[in-house]
Amino acid sequence: MDVCDLSPGYVRAIAPYQPGKPISELERELGLTEIVKLASNENPLGPSPKALAAIQKALPELARYPDGNGFELKAAICRKFNVTMDQVVLGNGSNDVLEMVARAFLAPGIAAVYSQHAFAVYPLAVQAIGAKGIEVPARNYGHDLEAMLEAIDEDTRIVFIANPNNPTGTVVQPAQLLGFLRRVPRTVVVVLDEAYYEYLPQDMKSASPAWIGEFPNLVVTRTFSKAYGLAALRVGFALAQPRIAELMNRVRQPFNVNTLGQVAATAALDDAEFVAKSVALNRAGMMQITTGLIELKLPFIPSYGNFVCFEVGDANAVFQKLLRKGVIVRPVANYGLPQHLRVSVGLESENARFLAALREVLAA
Amino acid sequence: MDVCDLSPGYVRAIAPYQPGKPISELERELGLTEIVKLASNENPLGPSPKALAAIQKALPELARYPDGNGFELKAAICRKFNVTMDQVVLGNGSNDVLEMVARAFLAPGIAAVYSQHAFAVYPLAVQAIGAKGIEVPARNYGHDLEAMLEAIDEDTRIVFIANPNNPTGTVVQPAQLLGFLRRVPRTVVVVLDEAYYEYLPQDMKSASPAWIGEFPNLVVTRTFSKAYGLAALRVGFALAQPRIAELMNRVRQPFNVNTLGQVAATAALDDAEFVAKSVALNRAGMMQITTGLIELKLPFIPSYGNFVCFEVGDANAVFQKLLRKGVIVRPVANYGLPQHLRVSVGLESENARFLAALREVLAA
Repeated sequence: MDVCDLSPGYVRAIAPYQPGKPISELERELGLTEIVKLASNENPLGPSPKALAAIQKALPELARYPDGNGFELKAAICRKFNVTMDQVVLGNGSNDVLEMVARAFLAPGIAAVYSQHAFAVYPLAVQAIGAKGIEVPARNYGHDLEAMLEAIDEDTRIVFIANPNNPTGTVVQPAQLLGFLRRVPRTVVVVLDEAYYEYLPQDMKSASPAWIGEFPNLVVTRTFSKAYGLAALRVGFALAQPRIAELMNRVRQPFNVNTLGQVAATAALDDAEFVAKSVALNRAGMMQITTGLIELKLPFIPSYGNFVCFEVGDANAVFQKLLRKGVIVRPVANYGLPQHLRVSVGLESENARFLAALREVLAA
Repeated sequence: MDVCDLSPGYVRAIAPYQPGKPISELERELGLTEIVKLASNENPLGPSPKALAAIQKALPELARYPDGNGFELKAAICRKFNVTMDQVVLGNGSNDVLEMVARAFLAPGIAAVYSQHAFAVYPLAVQAIGAKGIEVPARNYGHDLEAMLEAIDEDTRIVFIANPNNPTGTVVQPAQLLGFLRRVPRTVVVVLDEAYYEYLPQDMKSASPAWIGEFPNLVVTRTFSKAYGLAALRVGFALAQPRIAELMNRVRQPFNVNTLGQVAATAALDDAEFVAKSVALNRAGMMQITTGLIELKLPFIPSYGNFVCFEVGDANAVFQKLLRKGVIVRPVANYGLPQHLRVSVGLESENARFLAALREVLAA
């Protein structure tokens, strides 16, 4: 008997998150070059030039700790979303703010509700605390809000909603969301994870930052890893009323967001042109990919994100064959979708290369 | 009654970590410029030039997620410390690995032992889980290993040892540490936090990376935030036997270490010259500061880190007066040392400015 045998059972039972395969790993394993990675819903344009300029300016200060309060970045978020400093919580990616909500409100015996096929970090964050995860069956691959409301019991303290959802790309309309928020008990935190918000058409964008004034139990999360093109630097944030934000900050690591992430995100937030360009590229690329999938007669789940899930039979075999052709997509069997693969929207040339490789694999 | 009232009592009771005042904050508050910050035990030389070069090379990849497995950095750590990949856990600063140990082994009702005046993150990490913190009285401001052994009971799963300790700068000799490790039950993880290891004289450096082979319950933690000059980028790591490392990785956020931190740390690890220069500068600066304190007849705790705690009566008043002169040091009342201030060793000119300001404040 040693100390590992005494680690809490729920910790020993965690199956860690499986990240998309890094390009360097595939290069090492298969000796390939010119790899196309469409596996992690990254921005194919790279980072905003304004963010890069801000990073250059901050390099001489790398031996200093980050500002633990994130003053400049929070101030920029406040200007953009019309919230106050005490309504913002910064995270090491939105993964970090999702974990903070879990740690601030869950405990062994307490429950969180999330949807089938929803973002894998929700069950992981819940399990790491030894809390109870309640997975509600999806409806047409998306959130079944009625069923989720019914699943809330007196032990429930959190409901997670991913909108759009990763990996299925499904969306809930703003009016439905509002109706849901009005019916959730105030003793349950609603986490509205809007990592892919920027890709939504205008009329499907919620007014979530304004909603936090109305709902003291609402936590909106956003990220700089997608449309803002800063996944490498790990910056996300949450908006909520001050009481919730304050509890989240209590379980936050004091220097959780690195300095270059803070300055890059502050600059990126100001670069509306770059985001618009990224969203336009995504729209064209989504059309290109879905047109190709239709030609290949592969069913797909209509997506509002920067990725799309398509059905391909033995998905793992197709994934492996695509790897050998230097194209990385994402298997989603761990999301309960063993027949699907998820492909991120890339540059026009990357999308074309993916479609060509897929055509070859299916023909073989 | 809303959901905040239902947050676990131990979360609501957390008093968050108080970081050293950032320079920008003091500038905003007092309208000062030319501020000397000696508050956070940072490397006054800035980052290693090799780290800066590695960062430049990685900038085009900022829209990509970090390598969640940290392959290159782990490989560099393995080469330097003669360990295997499965014995390394990377953290968003060593703060992150300390929290991972806590989350992997503690739970409500379970206990962790640490010393009075020891690093503030230990009690915080314990409390965030609702576990029980057992603070053992210090001996001459340092760890009383005999008393810590006696404090271990059957609910204890972790003992934290900071060596050298922050903020007191005290040290435990390698032979004493080894004797301690031999007597700690194997059902208790010993976390040996060596954030300031590089500053130790050669004969006081433990062979801790080699010890993990002998002790299946040992976790050694190190950081890139001090002698390596990369505090802004948040990189730390733990070395432990694979079973412990694997449990820690289960509670690790998948992309906890940002890309620029990974590449900068990998390069910095290879820059022995920079570390040697940093350590030499620290030794000279420590002599300069302690000589000044002796002249001012201020008692201080002999320190083996890159900082020193000195006794000054009404420490908060002196801290505030130093701030007004543009010199930031660190109050340590929250460490149970209300009459002390901690000053980090800076450049020769910064140390001189601190001593001159202190002389003026005390004379006034």
